[in-house]
Amino acid sequence: MHTKTVLIVHAHPDPASLTAQLAAAARDALRGAGHEVLQSDLYALGWKAAYDERDFPDRLDPARLSFVDESGHAFRNGTQPDDIRAEQAKLLAADAVVFQFPLWWFGMPAIMKGWIERVFAYGLAYGYKDAGNTWRYGEGGLAGKRAMLSVTMGGPASDYAPRGINGQLDELLFPITHGTLFFPGMEVLPTHAVYDTGRIDAAGVAAAKEALAARMHTLFGDAPIPYRTQNGGDYPDRHLLADGVAPGVTGLRAHLGTA
Amino acid sequence: MHTKTVLIVHAHPDPASLTAQLAAAARDALRGAGHEVLQSDLYALGWKAAYDERDFPDRLDPARLSFVDESGHAFRNGTQPDDIRAEQAKLLAADAVVFQFPLWWFGMPAIMKGWIERVFAYGLAYGYKDAGNTWRYGEGGLAGKRAMLSVTMGGPASDYAPRGINGQLDELLFPITHGTLFFPGMEVLPTHAVYDTGRIDAAGVAAAKEALAARMHTLFGDAPIPYRTQNGGDYPDRHLLADGVAPGVTGLRAHLGTA
Repeated sequence: MHTKTVLIVHAHPDPASLTAQLAAAARDALRGAGHEVLQSDLYALGWKAAYDERDFPDRLDPARLSFVDESGHAFRNGTQPDDIRAEQAKLLAADAVVFQFPLWWFGMPAIMKGWIERVFAYGLAYGYKDAGNTWRYGEGGLAGKRAMLSVTMGGPASDYAPRGINGQLDELLFPITHGTLFFPGMEVLPTHAVYDTGRIDAAGVAAAKEALAARMHTLFGDAPIPYRTQNGGDYPDRHLLADGVAPGVTGLRAHLGTA
Repeated sequence: MHTKTVLIVHAHPDPASLTAQLAAAARDALRGAGHEVLQSDLYALGWKAAYDERDFPDRLDPARLSFVDESGHAFRNGTQPDDIRAEQAKLLAADAVVFQFPLWWFGMPAIMKGWIERVFAYGLAYGYKDAGNTWRYGEGGLAGKRAMLSVTMGGPASDYAPRGINGQLDELLFPITHGTLFFPGMEVLPTHAVYDTGRIDAAGVAAAKEALAARMHTLFGDAPIPYRTQNGGDYPDRHLLADGVAPGVTGLRAHLGTA
């Protein structure tokens, strides 16, 4: 078996939290299978969540803050802060990235959103090769890597079902799975979800750890979500689906190759 | 005309940014119409983005950090930090809230996500009246208020069209409009979007300000997005759409009263 490197990014300040326990379970399962594991425990790192001018100590334009321009400038010239560079080094070393977090207001905790914003630099995760949007959705600076969301939610699975009141889970997470992870080229696996954490008991925690460990064992074998690649022919002008592709289908689901 | 109070929350650190200019245009239009305007310029406030144990100086359980439990405890007992209380006071005083932000990785900037996480306390924006999910989606602690997202994006409108490669805009923003704002009872207006900001010129900025000002003039008259209310009959068990409601429709769109 070829050994792989996996980065686990997790976001909960309590080392005894379910999130921390699940991150540890994933780590142990991966190590048990012979993989190398890197970890980013964002609260323990004291990760700076807000993306701001302090992230660009050497400005291209001191008068006007364009995040896109300054991100590209800092990434190209090696003037990013050390914390960003350290996380990018882990990301680049990883064959797969697992994000473990509680779903807060139907998205990542702010501290993890800030990890994405600061680490996913122009030239790396967007604006790859400084070629605008030439390489995105299936190709880009993170191509060849896998990604998986592992989320916990207080509410029941029915709330996230195809006709559940919160909205269908994979569509709620599309801005992350498609727009954040597939965008720079990662293959994104179906999300791993643990529900009803508001009333989970010890047996439930044990079952959740086991289920996640099982997912870790197939991390490099499972089929990714079949999102359509930008340059595979479905978007001839790189913006709109061709009329003949999934004719009449609109919305997020249109971007699934199965639609 | 009855004078209303509007809170504008915006997130960009550069006072000359398009975001700051649009927030100012919205403010001026509202004041010109006789309304009271409150502002939360999150970067200027130095808003603490990460939600963590420092937000609960008086813990219910010092050994184990449950955000839900500690949020409810702190909100009930008046032991929240001053910055959170100040923002809640503005929110409670407001008849409408406008969120002005650049779309970063298809969501709010982390600093604004952190405003939601810290300000939208248990007992106020969820767990209203400590009654679990009895009051949500159309009813709750923020009922009677209106909300509107005003977003800017570097890319073209076609990327966000019903068959655009990024995904249809209103579905990308559903976790915010439905899951964050309609959840605690706000009436959410259709999103105001400005595209192509990567290459906007002075005339484009002027047009964008004017279009936003026009939206501000109809803020209290425009029809909200027709999301289905939890307790209006469409979700008899409070979890799943009744079979007879939008039969066969799945995903985010099922929660629109027009589906």
